[in-house]
Amino acid sequence: MRIAVLGTGSVGRTVAPALARLGHQVTVGTRDPAATRAREAWDLDLPLTGYDTAADDADLVVNATNGQASLEALTAVGADRLAGTVVLDVANPLDFSAGFPPTLTVKDTDSLAEQLQRAFPEARVVKSLNTTTAGVMVDPRSVGDGDTTMFVASDHAEARALVVDLLHQLGWRDVIEFDTLSAARAMEMWLPLWVRLMGTLGTARFNVKVVRDEAASTS
Amino acid sequence: MRIAVLGTGSVGRTVAPALARLGHQVTVGTRDPAATRAREAWDLDLPLTGYDTAADDADLVVNATNGQASLEALTAVGADRLAGTVVLDVANPLDFSAGFPPTLTVKDTDSLAEQLQRAFPEARVVKSLNTTTAGVMVDPRSVGDGDTTMFVASDHAEARALVVDLLHQLGWRDVIEFDTLSAARAMEMWLPLWVRLMGTLGTARFNVKVVRDEAASTS
Repeated sequence: MRIAVLGTGSVGRTVAPALARLGHQVTVGTRDPAATRAREAWDLDLPLTGYDTAADDADLVVNATNGQASLEALTAVGADRLAGTVVLDVANPLDFSAGFPPTLTVKDTDSLAEQLQRAFPEARVVKSLNTTTAGVMVDPRSVGDGDTTMFVASDHAEARALVVDLLHQLGWRDVIEFDTLSAARAMEMWLPLWVRLMGTLGTARFNVKVVRDEAASTS
Repeated sequence: MRIAVLGTGSVGRTVAPALARLGHQVTVGTRDPAATRAREAWDLDLPLTGYDTAADDADLVVNATNGQASLEALTAVGADRLAGTVVLDVANPLDFSAGFPPTLTVKDTDSLAEQLQRAFPEARVVKSLNTTTAGVMVDPRSVGDGDTTMFVASDHAEARALVVDLLHQLGWRDVIEFDTLSAARAMEMWLPLWVRLMGTLGTARFNVKVVRDEAASTS
């Protein structure tokens, strides 16, 4: 699959090479490629372009940007380019402007994923992976032998299935699907507890397992 | 221990007899005892009184009221009575006025637990148990052989320890403590995901296990 990963922060720099290792053809998109290349931290052996061309041939666009910059990044990709394309939104609408812990810029009656879907109504937005740290997103086996839970939400069944398949490739076995993107509100509102747990446990290497009867639905 | 359980909804009617079975001396408080007794559903063999006298001898007050009625209930108990007393807040600030799923009346920068603590500054408020359905609160072994996680938050270390001991009595083995009541924001913001999971899994009999290295802190 041809995948454009938008964002060169810790999430983009973790997700992009992991998808490439799975055999996908990955291009990384950033606002200013020259500035990104000049940064010491940039050492990925993957094509790096501006947002405007990163997704030119992409079957899947992964939004791994800062939640507050996501709308701008997808706008730079272009509504025409995103029409019909699956957008996997792994970002969180975190606001650190008042310090720690962060608050959410959107919540309860709306979500970042829904904001993106409304801005690009012809894209097919899928929310997933935002509930763990980047290293766990791409290596679920690193926590609890891989027996933890990942969530997926989208209004588009085919797009959801494409992402679930990608999750399986990454090693996720327990995937709970929500058939409406509005469930992204709940997935993003998990972040405050995630942040508190990180502080108390002293590590970001954790995840939740939703423990229930085996009969309960999963994919 | 002498415990006053405030509220005669499904949570109060589940928590009160469970605490009595552990050997505690439980009184149930309600706004209108005559109306509660008249309801068919009321069949508990426990003392039932108005909020104003329910906590007269209590070492612990459990707020099992509807989140939107909690402040009124504790006001009826009385600030003087609550001074120095541990208040275990198991309620959630859910607002069903716009239908399903519910929204939260308070979130992100504040919580129900903190509202109660501010209203009764001499009480010692502890948030816990709000993250599961009533049946699981009092019978954690009914999900995943009891190996799921319960959270506790309070600014008061001794009050937190008293609640943790009570959780152990109920069968909770994996308890994660937050040493600030502001973590209640995160615990209450878990509810939207809980509600979505209940809908998708078709059961309220589930809970999360926070899967992490054994070295991470628990009580």
